[in-house]
Amino acid sequence: MNQRRKIFNDPVYGFVSVPHGLLLTLIDHPYFQRLRRIRQLGLSSYVYPGALHTRFHHALGALHLMQETINVLRSKGVEITDQESEGVCVAILLHDIGHGPFSHALEHALVDLHHEALSLMFMKALNKELNGQLDLAIAIFTNQYPKKFLYQLVSGQLDMDRMDYLNRDSFFTGVSEGVIGYDRIIIMLDVHNGELVVEEKGMYSIEKFLTARRLMYWQVYLHKTGVAAEQMLIHLLARARELALEGKELDAPRDLARFLYRRPDEHWPEEKLLKHYARLDDTDLTACVKYWCDAEDPLLSYLSTGLLDRRLFRLQWLNEPLDEQSRTGILDQIGAMLPHLTPDKLLYEGRESIQAYNEAKAPIRILFKNGEVKNLTECSDVQLFTQPVTKYFVCYPKISIH
Amino acid sequence: MNQRRKIFNDPVYGFVSVPHGLLLTLIDHPYFQRLRRIRQLGLSSYVYPGALHTRFHHALGALHLMQETINVLRSKGVEITDQESEGVCVAILLHDIGHGPFSHALEHALVDLHHEALSLMFMKALNKELNGQLDLAIAIFTNQYPKKFLYQLVSGQLDMDRMDYLNRDSFFTGVSEGVIGYDRIIIMLDVHNGELVVEEKGMYSIEKFLTARRLMYWQVYLHKTGVAAEQMLIHLLARARELALEGKELDAPRDLARFLYRRPDEHWPEEKLLKHYARLDDTDLTACVKYWCDAEDPLLSYLSTGLLDRRLFRLQWLNEPLDEQSRTGILDQIGAMLPHLTPDKLLYEGRESIQAYNEAKAPIRILFKNGEVKNLTECSDVQLFTQPVTKYFVCYPKISIH
Amino acid sequence: MNQRRKIFNDPVYGFVSVPHGLLLTLIDHPYFQRLRRIRQLGLSSYVYPGALHTRFHHALGALHLMQETINVLRSKGVEITDQESEGVCVAILLHDIGHGPFSHALEHALVDLHHEALSLMFMKALNKELNGQLDLAIAIFTNQYPKKFLYQLVSGQLDMDRMDYLNRDSFFTGVSEGVIGYDRIIIMLDVHNGELVVEEKGMYSIEKFLTARRLMYWQVYLHKTGVAAEQMLIHLLARARELALEGKELDAPRDLARFLYRRPDEHWPEEKLLKHYARLDDTDLTACVKYWCDAEDPLLSYLSTGLLDRRLFRLQWLNEPLDEQSRTGILDQIGAMLPHLTPDKLLYEGRESIQAYNEAKAPIRILFKNGEVKNLTECSDVQLFTQPVTKYFVCYPKISIH
Amino acid sequence: MNQRRKIFNDPVYGFVSVPHGLLLTLIDHPYFQRLRRIRQLGLSSYVYPGALHTRFHHALGALHLMQETINVLRSKGVEITDQESEGVCVAILLHDIGHGPFSHALEHALVDLHHEALSLMFMKALNKELNGQLDLAIAIFTNQYPKKFLYQLVSGQLDMDRMDYLNRDSFFTGVSEGVIGYDRIIIMLDVHNGELVVEEKGMYSIEKFLTARRLMYWQVYLHKTGVAAEQMLIHLLARARELALEGKELDAPRDLARFLYRRPDEHWPEEKLLKHYARLDDTDLTACVKYWCDAEDPLLSYLSTGLLDRRLFRLQWLNEPLDEQSRTGILDQIGAMLPHLTPDKLLYEGRESIQAYNEAKAPIRILFKNGEVKNLTECSDVQLFTQPVTKYFVCYPKISIH
Repeated sequence: MNQRRKIFNDPVYGFVSVPHGLLLTLIDHPYFQRLRRIRQLGLSSYVYPGALHTRFHHALGALHLMQETINVLRSKGVEITDQESEGVCVAILLHDIGHGPFSHALEHALVDLHHEALSLMFMKALNKELNGQLDLAIAIFTNQYPKKFLYQLVSGQLDMDRMDYLNRDSFFTGVSEGVIGYDRIIIMLDVHNGELVVEEKGMYSIEKFLTARRLMYWQVYLHKTGVAAEQMLIHLLARARELALEGKELDAPRDLARFLYRRPDEHWPEEKLLKHYARLDDTDLTACVKYWCDAEDPLLSYLSTGLLDRRLFRLQWLNEPLDEQSRTGILDQIGAMLPHLTPDKLLYEGRESIQAYNEAKAPIRILFKNGEVKNLTECSDVQLFTQPVTKYFVCYPKISIH
Repeated sequence: MNQRRKIFNDPVYGFVSVPHGLLLTLIDHPYFQRLRRIRQLGLSSYVYPGALHTRFHHALGALHLMQETINVLRSKGVEITDQESEGVCVAILLHDIGHGPFSHALEHALVDLHHEALSLMFMKALNKELNGQLDLAIAIFTNQYPKKFLYQLVSGQLDMDRMDYLNRDSFFTGVSEGVIGYDRIIIMLDVHNGELVVEEKGMYSIEKFLTARRLMYWQVYLHKTGVAAEQMLIHLLARARELALEGKELDAPRDLARFLYRRPDEHWPEEKLLKHYARLDDTDLTACVKYWCDAEDPLLSYLSTGLLDRRLFRLQWLNEPLDEQSRTGILDQIGAMLPHLTPDKLLYEGRESIQAYNEAKAPIRILFKNGEVKNLTECSDVQLFTQPVTKYFVCYPKISIH
Repeated sequence: MNQRRKIFNDPVYGFVSVPHGLLLTLIDHPYFQRLRRIRQLGLSSYVYPGALHTRFHHALGALHLMQETINVLRSKGVEITDQESEGVCVAILLHDIGHGPFSHALEHALVDLHHEALSLMFMKALNKELNGQLDLAIAIFTNQYPKKFLYQLVSGQLDMDRMDYLNRDSFFTGVSEGVIGYDRIIIMLDVHNGELVVEEKGMYSIEKFLTARRLMYWQVYLHKTGVAAEQMLIHLLARARELALEGKELDAPRDLARFLYRRPDEHWPEEKLLKHYARLDDTDLTACVKYWCDAEDPLLSYLSTGLLDRRLFRLQWLNEPLDEQSRTGILDQIGAMLPHLTPDKLLYEGRESIQAYNEAKAPIRILFKNGEVKNLTECSDVQLFTQPVTKYFVCYPKISIH
Repeated sequence: MNQRRKIFNDPVYGFVSVPHGLLLTLIDHPYFQRLRRIRQLGLSSYVYPGALHTRFHHALGALHLMQETINVLRSKGVEITDQESEGVCVAILLHDIGHGPFSHALEHALVDLHHEALSLMFMKALNKELNGQLDLAIAIFTNQYPKKFLYQLVSGQLDMDRMDYLNRDSFFTGVSEGVIGYDRIIIMLDVHNGELVVEEKGMYSIEKFLTARRLMYWQVYLHKTGVAAEQMLIHLLARARELALEGKELDAPRDLARFLYRRPDEHWPEEKLLKHYARLDDTDLTACVKYWCDAEDPLLSYLSTGLLDRRLFRLQWLNEPLDEQSRTGILDQIGAMLPHLTPDKLLYEGRESIQAYNEAKAPIRILFKNGEVKNLTECSDVQLFTQPVTKYFVCYPKISIH
């Protein structure tokens, strides 16, 4: 076996090496190269200036961990054929290929499809182009393949997606609290009755993994400044669409304009959707923000300038929705400060639920030395963040006192 | 002294903390925020996918090292007043503020000014806006200030610019060979007769620093794939400008279009230049590349598509310029492969000289325990890369065999 | 101020720099140099081969963090005089100077004094030798000094001792789950009404710190193999003392023999105790283990050989004490396997309680932006390990089946 | 293949995993466990307090790199059977098993054998005990095995020994200048005509490796304070032997005393030598130093106390041997300061030659894309430290001025 490999430098793992063949063909495809232009953490670089890493790099990293996991499992006697190995590697490589510019939230502003559905659409298109070479990967990705643990490695509580992104996001933000012992977790993985399990000795690492995940939510993914920026972008885009539907002319890159002026719906043939969608990336939105600083519409211009020059809104997390009185108070202040704008177009509310570990949906299973297997919550005596926590936010321009 | 500080996360140093006041005012200014959209390593992320870090982060990092250096020097009895400390910090913070999109090479395609001249132009504009608060910083930046070592910390063989970029580029590319012992070097700095010197004990670290610098040149800054991408971008832009001057209409962001359509002989007043230039960043060029994939001009569209989808030219470093015979051979092959394009528009030649340590220009001075000071080359018995090394490149489409 | 500093290399922090003067005098003292021969984690290197770091290095590290903390607090306007700064630095440097060889558990086998009392004894002796220069340090160490936060930095929930040892132990064991964001915690420290508080923004880091502390307990400090080795050493020493009191002659280094043959009691004058104790270190016990491999007493020789060649006992953690029936079963097996030894000399039982955060004793106080201060448990919605958890262990030779 | 593996934590590589079977049997053997008590860098921890890592950990690390290298070579089509893989792994694991306490220099003070000869002796003894299972490993270790590259991986310019120790020593000392891109070097290794070669793309990493090696020599291995401590220990031991041969009684651990009172010579049967030698480790010498602080002989006691309390001699590196006049001057000063000792017993001279890359002995071979292979010096344009550099040292007590 003389299998040449291409090497990608990765500050997180040192190297990611990819065998020549199907995997490299996919990486070289323009669909995948597009991920070089989509950041993993959207606007979080406003808070963590190092967090500029892309979904391209994340996908390579997840592939790397998958390759390591396959080695570990095989060394423990788990049978994984070369075809299955390639299939599960393709599945993890492409798991995010349908991701749109910036965050999930923004996705919905552009298309009425979940990014996983879009990823599947991309995979099918690639499969067609490559004469069915992705059949097995698609079966795994959609949980149609008999060996369930392969699916769990792609999409589960301990999948290679999470393992890489926690690790990578922690690395590039510099938030050391998010560091997980991914290598120890991987080394503790095994398969029992066709399902992924963790050896007993790995339990502390799993506890730590869940703690780190929860922490990354509040410290990074839902950091108030990052969410504020995202809210501004969402409302900026919503405003642009409003204007577009009113027939106003707006400067915008052609690729984005298509989605601005007419939202894809069931009448768009899949092929057309894919063709246009496959050209969208973060730079289209940044281009818009830059164009719209000079927009005639004062709201659009206000939001754009704020976003471009990082004059971001204030955001607060609350345990309950904003009460009426506070809302009125804030609106009054906004009105006083920005008399040329409509206050309620500048006050955004919403909520987020997080649950670091959803045992009901997909339990993490612990394998004991005596062969017994138990759900994690049955064995651990610490808080595992299995209950969803909901918080409410309110977001509006910083009130400056003159 | 109750000096509040703003903290920036930095995966390289953990934290960078900046005191409220002038420095933070500058960081918040749109001119400085623009640096968030200019990558430190231009197109190198095609080779090193993690190398997405920006000049914004680099400037903060250099500021951090400057703050550390000031502490070290003061603890050794070097007198640095609070005003001087702020001045030299401002100077390093803004040393690259005039940097244009992508690389230096590209700069020249847009404006006929060196980026240091542009940085000075920005500083002067900011100084005006801030009523002279930058006077001292400008004096240091232009080497007009009597305490010469302050200038050397901003622009010298061991300045904080180099110290940070070697470190940072090594970190984000994952090229561990570029790691330098910046903390040890800083701790060994001192001032002697008004000039920056390095204590004898730091000599190995300096040798290592120069070795690492040379290595980063060949492994990162002049990596053949990165230079190939840059060549494509330069020629793509040159072609666009040609078409623009011929009066062809090209899609382009407004900010960039101004520079594209501007006649070479057009004299813009400084104010106008600054206003427009201050809006340019990497995203404008990416937007163009995306637009021009569909350009009518086949050359422009060919180069754009190649760059977008990462089908990059092949580049070779040679010890001598390409000979006539080889050139003809390559042109013939290009002609055969791409009959619809003009071959000599697809063959790029050039050269680069590197010199890790230019002692003639500004020697590194070593301070011995006995008080003696010598130039580095007099004390070290290793190769210090003081001789410029020139290499020639040739760059053209990958010849595929059908 | 031209304050020369001595620099110590530290893989954890890069450098620790210590000003010439009292601190360096103390470091150079034989009492402090002795700590070079006492490992921070005792026998844990049987489990984590990298965990060979000493109390010497830990004390330097804690000093480093103290210096950083003082800078942070001063920059927030907390008044700390130069004398107080030196005092609190001396106190943290010497906080463990009375530590005996290996673990606390072993300490008691040699002397009837807690290591903190011994540390104080050392400090007083040094203070005498240095003409009262340690007065302030001793006042802080014994919580007699009015500025209570200084004591809290030496001995509290967030003292520099814990901060360094969690960090350092995590580093040298390679247990990445123990990584704490010490730099972020330090940057969030402040003083309010004379007490140490943590700014609201640092709360996640504190939660993470407590989680990491708990994890390090189970994964490192109470790792079953490490505790097993420690139990063997304790019982080996107890057996040696028994034999010594019976008048048997045992090879042992002179320094240790003094403690073996006659346990220090109230009748030993403090000076004598200190003189002899100050010569004890880990190597004395290793020397004994090596000597006693050849001891006539079969138990002593059995335990020594096992420890030297790393044939360690088996240890189990139980939620309840071992029941009678299991005990009998184990003793029978030991008897069958090792007929020449007394089984109940080979079965060790004990218990450990851990409590990552003892709020009752010393609460961590959170400072909110509005000036309010609350105990950590009032603000956090996660488990903070405030309840002591007790586990029982049983430890005996590995039963091999022939 | 269900191959269980034991996992060792390693802060350098994260984990080292070792398959159950021969390798683990060897690791568990008392001969190998002895390496836990022999430090890799001897007395260097007097300079770099973190440098306490042992030859045990180094051997595991080298094994880890060997396993990675085998995977890389196999993936490039190099045939390595499972037996050969185990053989070369055993050879690297045991390459230092004959190492004596502290440094090579000290070795000679105890036995008249080079540590490689001793390692071979140990291997043969183990081979006998294990019924010939080490035959292949011994053939590789002694370069008797036809596939020469296997020997080169154990003992060559780029062997796994060097690769690990540079890396590990750099890690534990904290000397970041010694960092090498070991993972990149390994990934670039290949075999050509039965010999180890490096792919062209790895050339910069090799240059960096040689630079780092040279730097580690001067900054760590030959650091003046570390060498001074070693000189003290060598002369202390020499003095003890003198006294021993004069019939003086000296306290010393039994294991060491055997070597002190009678130097092993040709008349010792190998078996006896091995038996006693296999009990020696660093702690025996530390025990001596502690005993001899109280020795009657003033020189022995002076040296011992100095070493124990870290009052180390001064050492200078000179380009030429010390001239007569300086020698006399120093001796006079010593005499004045220490009238009760013989000055010329306190002045030590010697020399060291280093050569980072001995191409004449074993060239590093570079494999070019076109299949050509050249010696490194033919391809590289930088200084490769192929010339031995000799320096002379002089070492004596610090002259204090009263």
